[in-house]
Amino acid sequence: GVKAEIKKICIKNLDKQRTLPAEFFTTSKEELLRDPEIDVIVELIDDASAAFEIVKASLQNGKAVVTANKRMLAEHLKEIYELQQRYKRPVLYEGAVCGSIPIIRNLEEYYDNDMIKRVEGIFNGSTNYILTKVLEEGNSYSDALQEAQTLGFAESDPRFDVQAFDSAFKLAILVVHAFGIFVRPENIIRFGIERISAVDLKYAKYHDLSIKLVARAFKSGNNIYALVAPQFIDTRHSLHTVRNEFNAVLIEGAFAEEQLFVGKGAGGYPTGSAVLSDISALRYDYGYEYRKLNQENQVSFSNEAVIDVVVSFSNDIQISTDKFIRFDGGLHVQRQQSMHGLASIGRIKQWSGQEGISVIVKPGAVLEPLVVGEKKVLNYA
Amino acid sequence: GVKAEIKKICIKNLDKQRTLPAEFFTTSKEELLRDPEIDVIVELIDDASAAFEIVKASLQNGKAVVTANKRMLAEHLKEIYELQQRYKRPVLYEGAVCGSIPIIRNLEEYYDNDMIKRVEGIFNGSTNYILTKVLEEGNSYSDALQEAQTLGFAESDPRFDVQAFDSAFKLAILVVHAFGIFVRPENIIRFGIERISAVDLKYAKYHDLSIKLVARAFKSGNNIYALVAPQFIDTRHSLHTVRNEFNAVLIEGAFAEEQLFVGKGAGGYPTGSAVLSDISALRYDYGYEYRKLNQENQVSFSNEAVIDVVVSFSNDIQISTDKFIRFDGGLHVQRQQSMHGLASIGRIKQWSGQEGISVIVKPGAVLEPLVVGEKKVLNYA
Repeated sequence: GVKAEIKKICIKNLDKQRTLPAEFFTTSKEELLRDPEIDVIVELIDDASAAFEIVKASLQNGKAVVTANKRMLAEHLKEIYELQQRYKRPVLYEGAVCGSIPIIRNLEEYYDNDMIKRVEGIFNGSTNYILTKVLEEGNSYSDALQEAQTLGFAESDPRFDVQAFDSAFKLAILVVHAFGIFVRPENIIRFGIERISAVDLKYAKYHDLSIKLVARAFKSGNNIYALVAPQFIDTRHSLHTVRNEFNAVLIEGAFAEEQLFVGKGAGGYPTGSAVLSDISALRYDYGYEYRKLNQENQVSFSNEAVIDVVVSFSNDIQISTDKFIRFDGGLHVQRQQSMHGLASIGRIKQWSGQEGISVIVKPGAVLEPLVVGEKKVLNYA
Repeated sequence: GVKAEIKKICIKNLDKQRTLPAEFFTTSKEELLRDPEIDVIVELIDDASAAFEIVKASLQNGKAVVTANKRMLAEHLKEIYELQQRYKRPVLYEGAVCGSIPIIRNLEEYYDNDMIKRVEGIFNGSTNYILTKVLEEGNSYSDALQEAQTLGFAESDPRFDVQAFDSAFKLAILVVHAFGIFVRPENIIRFGIERISAVDLKYAKYHDLSIKLVARAFKSGNNIYALVAPQFIDTRHSLHTVRNEFNAVLIEGAFAEEQLFVGKGAGGYPTGSAVLSDISALRYDYGYEYRKLNQENQVSFSNEAVIDVVVSFSNDIQISTDKFIRFDGGLHVQRQQSMHGLASIGRIKQWSGQEGISVIVKPGAVLEPLVVGEKKVLNYA
């Protein structure tokens, strides 16, 4: 029903076996960019810098763009917003965030009037697949990672997934549509899943918990706070049943209250379905309005927030209890230790820079502004 | 941000205390319908026949309509579709189906290109609230019902909720947007929650299951099948964490694969949020396109489907094993019996007409076309 026609496909390698006839393919992107018959460029390459140049050139040539390149978007979203304003052509990118889940469209269209308080979820299919296999099926971490790569869920460089870069990119994109502020992805503090230790897995098993990599942003006053970190999830939590390559986005609005969207976040078909929906929307010249960027109350991004965590590490590392805003206790298990308490995002960032320390958010914990005794205290000097 | 103004509110009782000044209120609907300054009528009354007359008169007077009256919509959707075509004014009704979940908008806009195979979920907040309280907190059925009514989740006539009329109305509405066919709500076979027995609750407890009232429709070939019935849900099921007044809709598409939407399905704010989003969409003259009604392959509605069930009843009732397409066994517990097997929708309808019989769909069971030994067999004579 889309009534769009594929004119030309720009590829790297002409010799590779393709399912379409050879005349569809070219290695020259100029051939597409200069073709006046082409209205839409669909950009699906790996290289973020090259992708940005393609998006820019497309808009300059009066062409709409559909892209699924989250890194490129997260790093250049402000410029892409301005280019859209300038050249009056839209860039759509539903496929860049949580595969088949229509989250950008819903934030743009449907939650337009509903003051959004919180956006959180599982944004990376590959790490969720790995965590499901490790936590529920007892696979080893390396086997699970390899399996995810074989199934096409993992990025070509797995660090993007497991070190939570990918989730931070997606969170940076959603923050624009949910809260109306551009945040540099490197300003979002992230803690990956590669540090999860044997003692964490034991803790999870003993308390009947799973572990999910949760990306979260929330609004308090005129501040926006964000964090990407693994979290223990109990069986009653709404993210509990989100397994394998599935993604989930939870939106809390003032009127709609809690909304959860769950769908496949990785793999060719789910991403393809989002790209196709974007192409289809261009038929009626659909473009994002970014209305929240023009809201009355301008918001700021801040990392002065706190959250309840479990920090675990081996006995050759020492962490003093005063590193916590509130220390709740700890325990030794053989050569491993774990400490529970309220920690600042700044402290979590410090720990993420130290080898051998694992940080996991406690079940049910939420990010809160850093306020101690009625005044703000930054306790991570 | 909506930039809409409330001109007049038509009510039944002028003497009741209101938060807005008296000049906003009238008891004459004609005053609203004939006012050329009013562009949109928001219809939120209880009486389905009166509501339909209001919708009709509004369209005839060139006014767009926002309504949340699921019964009226389910019973008159074909006429409302035709009236919209004729008078070129839209009727929006997101608030009628699953409160705050933007399911109609997503089916209309986003899943436009994705061949939908299946729509199912928990469409009634009141029964889900009752079942959560009874199954998880051990409340009595009558206490839980009263609590739901006090909290404003239950309809004024609780039979609409507990006998699953409400879920069937909503399913009839979604079937139009998902599959492109008008189905009379009375043609959708439904089994309520009021028959759930002590032995069902024991079975659930023993197997660590919950019970949810699940509405489902699916497409096979050119046929659409539907059923509303309670179902046992295991802890791995994606509806497992949908508790209390929350609703959920699961969509299975050819490309997007499984998508789950969860949100509050009952209560003033969630429904109000949906109504507000509809009003907001009318700013840019948004209307449903009902594209699936004009698809190439016309579909038919059929009740010739089967599903795995647990049927329980007291010893003074007799059910012979040949009432099942496939009988899997049964058991006696004190004065109660239960029988497990594959049953046709026609048979489930028969049982719904007999006092004292409870039918609950087995965990993980799906509706399937009635095909036995390569040919269709209707076995409920």
